[in-house]
Amino acid sequence: TANKRLLVLPGDGIGPEVMREVRRVIEWMDRRRHVSFALEEGLVGGAALEAEGSPCPDATVERALAADAVLFGSVGGPKWDSLPFEQRPELGILRLRKELGLFANLRPAVVLDPLVDASSLKPDVVRGLDLMIVRESTGGIYFGEPRGVEVMADGKRRGIDTEVYTEDEIARVARVAFELARKRTGKMTSVEKANVMQSGRLWRAVVSEIGKAEFPDVQLSHMYADNCAMQLCLRPKQFDVILASNIFGDLLSDLAAAATGSLGMLPSATLGAPDASGRRHALYEPIHGSAPDIAGKGIANPCAQLLSFAMLLRWSFGMEEDAAMIETAVEKVLAGGLRTADIMGPGTARVGTSVMGDAILREL
Amino acid sequence: TANKRLLVLPGDGIGPEVMREVRRVIEWMDRRRHVSFALEEGLVGGAALEAEGSPCPDATVERALAADAVLFGSVGGPKWDSLPFEQRPELGILRLRKELGLFANLRPAVVLDPLVDASSLKPDVVRGLDLMIVRESTGGIYFGEPRGVEVMADGKRRGIDTEVYTEDEIARVARVAFELARKRTGKMTSVEKANVMQSGRLWRAVVSEIGKAEFPDVQLSHMYADNCAMQLCLRPKQFDVILASNIFGDLLSDLAAAATGSLGMLPSATLGAPDASGRRHALYEPIHGSAPDIAGKGIANPCAQLLSFAMLLRWSFGMEEDAAMIETAVEKVLAGGLRTADIMGPGTARVGTSVMGDAILREL
Ligand SMILES: CC(C)[C@H](C(=O)O)[C@@H](O)C(=O)O
Ligand SMILES: CC(C)[C@H](C(=O)O)[C@@H](O)C(=O)O
Repeated sequence: TANKRLLVLPGDGIGPEVMREVRRVIEWMDRRRHVSFALEEGLVGGAALEAEGSPCPDATVERALAADAVLFGSVGGPKWDSLPFEQRPELGILRLRKELGLFANLRPAVVLDPLVDASSLKPDVVRGLDLMIVRESTGGIYFGEPRGVEVMADGKRRGIDTEVYTEDEIARVARVAFELARKRTGKMTSVEKANVMQSGRLWRAVVSEIGKAEFPDVQLSHMYADNCAMQLCLRPKQFDVILASNIFGDLLSDLAAAATGSLGMLPSATLGAPDASGRRHALYEPIHGSAPDIAGKGIANPCAQLLSFAMLLRWSFGMEEDAAMIETAVEKVLAGGLRTADIMGPGTARVGTSVMGDAILREL
Repeated sequence: TANKRLLVLPGDGIGPEVMREVRRVIEWMDRRRHVSFALEEGLVGGAALEAEGSPCPDATVERALAADAVLFGSVGGPKWDSLPFEQRPELGILRLRKELGLFANLRPAVVLDPLVDASSLKPDVVRGLDLMIVRESTGGIYFGEPRGVEVMADGKRRGIDTEVYTEDEIARVARVAFELARKRTGKMTSVEKANVMQSGRLWRAVVSEIGKAEFPDVQLSHMYADNCAMQLCLRPKQFDVILASNIFGDLLSDLAAAATGSLGMLPSATLGAPDASGRRHALYEPIHGSAPDIAGKGIANPCAQLLSFAMLLRWSFGMEEDAAMIETAVEKVLAGGLRTADIMGPGTARVGTSVMGDAILREL
């Protein structure tokens, strides 16, 4: 029964071509595992801008709100780089996060054994790396008011953004991170600049309070954001779950992803609050961007998009078995020596997007 | 003649012990090179808090304003970690930056050949690395108003910080970066989140304008801060001069420092605007912190503090020859195989702070 409503938003650049491989896996699931999705496709980013004049049309928001889960590709490209703020493709993802209330962005950084050498860090530094960044994603400086560029009395311009967090916003994302830490190794690092920022001071206080009251079993530590950036480079394996604000999480999660050396492999999930029936809005997307330089060449790595779909199965539909099946298939294909260009290493065979997809389907 | 007024602020943790080695070099210069400094010592950080009840007493600010240059150690330690905001040792450095108008923080990240293996990054990724981060250091979210933690009508707390930049603030630090780029390889990367932040949008516009009008010979590019964090890990050698706001510069410069693997080697300079006579306030400090865990053990690396003094000679007194002499002495000692614990590698000899100082003096 097709009770799983899925909205697919391929977006720009390599988005559509990696999404194609996911659709093949979905068709396979339909045939072989008798899991049926009510699948819709929508427009977002530059693609939506061209077709409908907005990077995130109302129709897309409405369909996303109605769906059980959104599978997002990537947005942006040089074509739209000089557009004014309100028309930028990036607003596609920002608006979806905000309108769906997707406040908890989960970004795993994992180094699979066959890909240890893909990292710019030494093998010993990253072997076995498996951390999770929980980034707040509907608040902070991304949305705070006042914001804008204004002209002052002397005719000069001034740009303003506001970093603002309420204790409830901090608490709810902290709880997501604590829950995850509890399920993992029980260790969590909360990151801010409490030595400089007032919102950071509140962040540290609230996270400490929640930890003490609700998660005394989780070993909580606090770290300044600059030190965290440093430590992610020096000794990334010291971390398990990292909790950070929207803007710090943006930098730190990209850095953690870079440390793995295999950006084309990393999925992410962004979750809203569960309602009374346990249903929550959720969006899944690869960490990599739209990679306009390689778009349309058939060489992009489809794994991150596929692993995003696996996260979707796990988090939105509780389909742990199917999720693990996809993850295992990806790992096996890598262990077999197939690589897309981004993760090439000595002794491996270079293949394109669809051959990678074929191989994964064969494993399934 | 002692016309060079120098204020020395050892601060906390390893600050005093590494500063001791610098004083030995200063004495040597006095005797051998007939360069005489009018040297004063002052209190800052936790040390000042204990002695005078403030992490940055007015007397220290006054002496810093009167000095030609300030040599700063490091501040902070667990002893003061739970103090309220207004008493934290870090306010020592923040207040000095603000009161002396030190808006341009120059943070080189250099990998010396003998230390290539100290990095957590692969040798090929960092060999020959030589970049300079220019970080704005008196503006942005560090000082913007409104800021604070307030209690809202519903009794809940809310933390607020304001990221604010005027075009003049952006322009003056951009000029410092452009000048540096011109003297180096002519390449500069300006970093912000213009896709999300309004101040970032202004930042990008102003830097572009200054570049076009005044530095058409410098090859300017723009990069989002998250991507920059990623690229510093993946391919740090692509950069020459990086320009960033106070908060992004904080994370990115620590990350770049970490990438070198030799934090104990890295100096920094923070400069004010030159007055009519070309005189400018300036403060020099190692990138490393107060390292309370190893303080007092005599094992800290004195090189960063010494190289900060070399930067001081170059930038504040135009003593290029003496600066280079110190830098060469440090390099020779490293090439000879001596190492403090932080930069140990196979086939090198581990020495303490003062033996390292001895060796450098001997080279001089
Ligand atoms: C595209 C951009 C607006 C976005 C962000 O800054 O959040 C991206 O970098 C991300 O991390 O998802
Ligand atoms: C000590 C702290 C306030 C300071 C900062 O955040 O600027 C430090 O991290 C630095 O980079 O000099």
